[in-house]
Amino acid sequence: MTELADIGVMGLAVMGANLARNAARKGFGVAVYNRHGGRTDELIENYGTEGRFFPSKQVADFVASIARPRPIIIMVKAGKPVDEVIEELIPHLDEGDIIIDGGNSLFTDTNRRFHYLTEKKLRFIGMGVSGGEEGALEGPSMMPGGTREAYARIEPIVTRMAAQVDGEPCCTYIGTEGSGHFVKMVHNGIEYADMQLITEAYDLFKTVYGLDAGTISKIFADWNTGELNSYLIEITAAVLAKVDDTGKPLVDSIVDEAEQKGTGRWTAQSALDLGIPLTSITEAVFARALSARRSARAEAEKLLPHPAVATLPIGQAEIDAIRDALYASKIVAYAQGFEQLTVASQQYGWDLKLDELATIWRGGCIIRARFLNRIREAYKSGGGAANLILEDYFRDAVLKAEPAWRKVVALAVEKGIPVPAFASSLAYYDGLRRARGPANLLQGLRDYFGAHTYARLDKSGKFHTRWSQDGAEVQVSQ
Amino acid sequence: MTELADIGVMGLAVMGANLARNAARKGFGVAVYNRHGGRTDELIENYGTEGRFFPSKQVADFVASIARPRPIIIMVKAGKPVDEVIEELIPHLDEGDIIIDGGNSLFTDTNRRFHYLTEKKLRFIGMGVSGGEEGALEGPSMMPGGTREAYARIEPIVTRMAAQVDGEPCCTYIGTEGSGHFVKMVHNGIEYADMQLITEAYDLFKTVYGLDAGTISKIFADWNTGELNSYLIEITAAVLAKVDDTGKPLVDSIVDEAEQKGTGRWTAQSALDLGIPLTSITEAVFARALSARRSARAEAEKLLPHPAVATLPIGQAEIDAIRDALYASKIVAYAQGFEQLTVASQQYGWDLKLDELATIWRGGCIIRARFLNRIREAYKSGGGAANLILEDYFRDAVLKAEPAWRKVVALAVEKGIPVPAFASSLAYYDGLRRARGPANLLQGLRDYFGAHTYARLDKSGKFHTRWSQDGAEVQVSQ
Repeated sequence: MTELADIGVMGLAVMGANLARNAARKGFGVAVYNRHGGRTDELIENYGTEGRFFPSKQVADFVASIARPRPIIIMVKAGKPVDEVIEELIPHLDEGDIIIDGGNSLFTDTNRRFHYLTEKKLRFIGMGVSGGEEGALEGPSMMPGGTREAYARIEPIVTRMAAQVDGEPCCTYIGTEGSGHFVKMVHNGIEYADMQLITEAYDLFKTVYGLDAGTISKIFADWNTGELNSYLIEITAAVLAKVDDTGKPLVDSIVDEAEQKGTGRWTAQSALDLGIPLTSITEAVFARALSARRSARAEAEKLLPHPAVATLPIGQAEIDAIRDALYASKIVAYAQGFEQLTVASQQYGWDLKLDELATIWRGGCIIRARFLNRIREAYKSGGGAANLILEDYFRDAVLKAEPAWRKVVALAVEKGIPVPAFASSLAYYDGLRRARGPANLLQGLRDYFGAHTYARLDKSGKFHTRWSQDGAEVQVSQ
Repeated sequence: MTELADIGVMGLAVMGANLARNAARKGFGVAVYNRHGGRTDELIENYGTEGRFFPSKQVADFVASIARPRPIIIMVKAGKPVDEVIEELIPHLDEGDIIIDGGNSLFTDTNRRFHYLTEKKLRFIGMGVSGGEEGALEGPSMMPGGTREAYARIEPIVTRMAAQVDGEPCCTYIGTEGSGHFVKMVHNGIEYADMQLITEAYDLFKTVYGLDAGTISKIFADWNTGELNSYLIEITAAVLAKVDDTGKPLVDSIVDEAEQKGTGRWTAQSALDLGIPLTSITEAVFARALSARRSARAEAEKLLPHPAVATLPIGQAEIDAIRDALYASKIVAYAQGFEQLTVASQQYGWDLKLDELATIWRGGCIIRARFLNRIREAYKSGGGAANLILEDYFRDAVLKAEPAWRKVVALAVEKGIPVPAFASSLAYYDGLRRARGPANLLQGLRDYFGAHTYARLDKSGKFHTRWSQDGAEVQVSQ
């Protein structure tokens, strides 16, 4: 009997090749295929000794080399290529075979593909994979969505491939349909907010206090020993510390135009659909868009000249204040992201386990952080935290950080340093913690020009004032 | 020969009935039809003497009563009902007849319907109509999109129905496909921002300075005589001045939960698609969403108690400062909205005339304002304002308002009053007017964890640092 592979990987660009190597290193037999065979040869040539690889140059041979029901991870560019690869595979598959999309697909595409393949008696798993190239190789955080049965087939493999934290794999069953990709999308959205907050802190140190990259690096390295401990804070210190061949800090030579690939934007668009006030992540997406308008900014600087910021002296109190502002804003960003997950779970019937999401994000992925243990506990304790900010641990942290948070935002406003994520997080917090806001006026205006009606505090029902007629109020519904 | 109607209106809820009456009052013969005939009877009974109505109880009769090529305005709920009504009409129509969707349809739906009906040798106009019930009757602002030829057929009718300002109708040809509905969508988005800014000013007067509704009303009435002169400021004064049967200001009894119908959300989602930093409108949409979480806010107030705000004395300087903050933020909101129109016009090939949009928004619609004359001039002078903020008039206004704007935002931050639209507008402004922002760090982080590469200020090409390997920098593209 011919030996068969345990799993297949189709698409051998860096992410796909690294996932294949990861599985092979863990002892699994891995079938590999790439449209252009050169990549397959390269993989075998360079890493063939890392484990048992089953290379093929034809899709039919590739499929035939995998043990049934066959789990096949496809790692191709999100969008049309995924559909093309699926169509290419279908004729060769048998009932119950499992296609696993490990790319950053839009969750609504995954929903569609899930139902399409189910109709064909095939199975489909949309699996978010976070951790970049290194994570793919060393152990990523994995978020597989599909049927429980399909997941059970791949569980022994993917839980071995995933990062491990405190003996637990950073991989668990997420839910049906496109829930795995949805969760990965929100993960990426949170990553956008995290990075924007770091950028705002950096800007304040650099522009308001005149610190150089090396000095700021040391501050981030110090923060990484405390409650902010996380991969992104750690690599911020590393990036800021980097001196390039010119002998100067590399960061000072990098162009200030941030790029983006879509998951942050999708997260914001989904929040708008779901009615979630997702201000921090959305401001982070917009900040990248504004950064990308570099020539417009150069033009604006000429037409709106401002004197250089007179830098201030800095001490530990100022450093701590910025840390507090970042930390409180981060709590808001995560609270908003987790609210989005909560509402999506209800709306789409996915039954997401938020404590498990926090668990599998503790390692392997870009937003991995000590902090996630706290979120895990908040959701584990049951009661289903309505808003993370209201959970004891985070509430205390925010209340403690609040005075510094205000001072830092006010200082940035005064000095003309844009801190859209710090400021919008604070505005959200101030809007959330008030039982009575000012939207009563807004409802009055809507009733005036559009007869949209309003509710009253003192009576039940909906009312309309005949503003332009006799000015009387009429009750229009119970 | 039987006399025929000049135009048909299908769907006689308030907006449809008022548009029909508007056309009849201007001397046009108007065919009217409603699925439930009772509404048709009511219209004829109550307003039949206002002009020449041609009522029908059957779609076939309704269509037959209109002069060819027939212009038929449909006024039904956006979404599926529009498709249903179109299918109901099709069998009765002749080549070249024109269906005009006057509702708030999503522009991508309008794109689809435009091409669908064109294939059937019918014509389709997606027409944004703003001004609410009163506007529909007295003269709205109308934004028709479709082919120029189709527009030419309806032009004599719709330009008479529209509001008139300085002898010009608030109606002009917008562009092909769904451009009319797109433009109306952005109009509504801007309306969201306008209303949010008003609400933030109201909140500051009420909460920071302890003013009552009547006093705040007088301030808005005064503002309406100056550069803020606009319909929304005018009706804000009216709503705040209103005392209801309880003898108290009505606004104090209205529940502070803002509702929304979708166009604001769509505007934000479109901006995310187009890569436009549309912070003011998006924060306005999120502020409504947060206001709607009333029970969560009540819960949060209990868990995050804060002392009542100690109110401050107020004088003309404080009033003027809030006015300046509102005005500068408003300029940002409009600049962002017009950038969205500019980019959409390029991306979708619509050739939008931005000066004409400003022109037709000067009357009839909800955002009508003196201010729009300035925008009209900015785009008329040619050169195609890259960003309204950089045009002389607005630049001077923003620079003049800037010190007060900063003070007001800082005060709100200190006092704990959420001003998300004031603050995000200011952050955008501060981000725009800097040639060098902090996104270089962000690009460094992206290269670290994802090998996304970065550009350098001192060399052309794209670079990657092998962070976790030998730390060397490699050039990956020219």
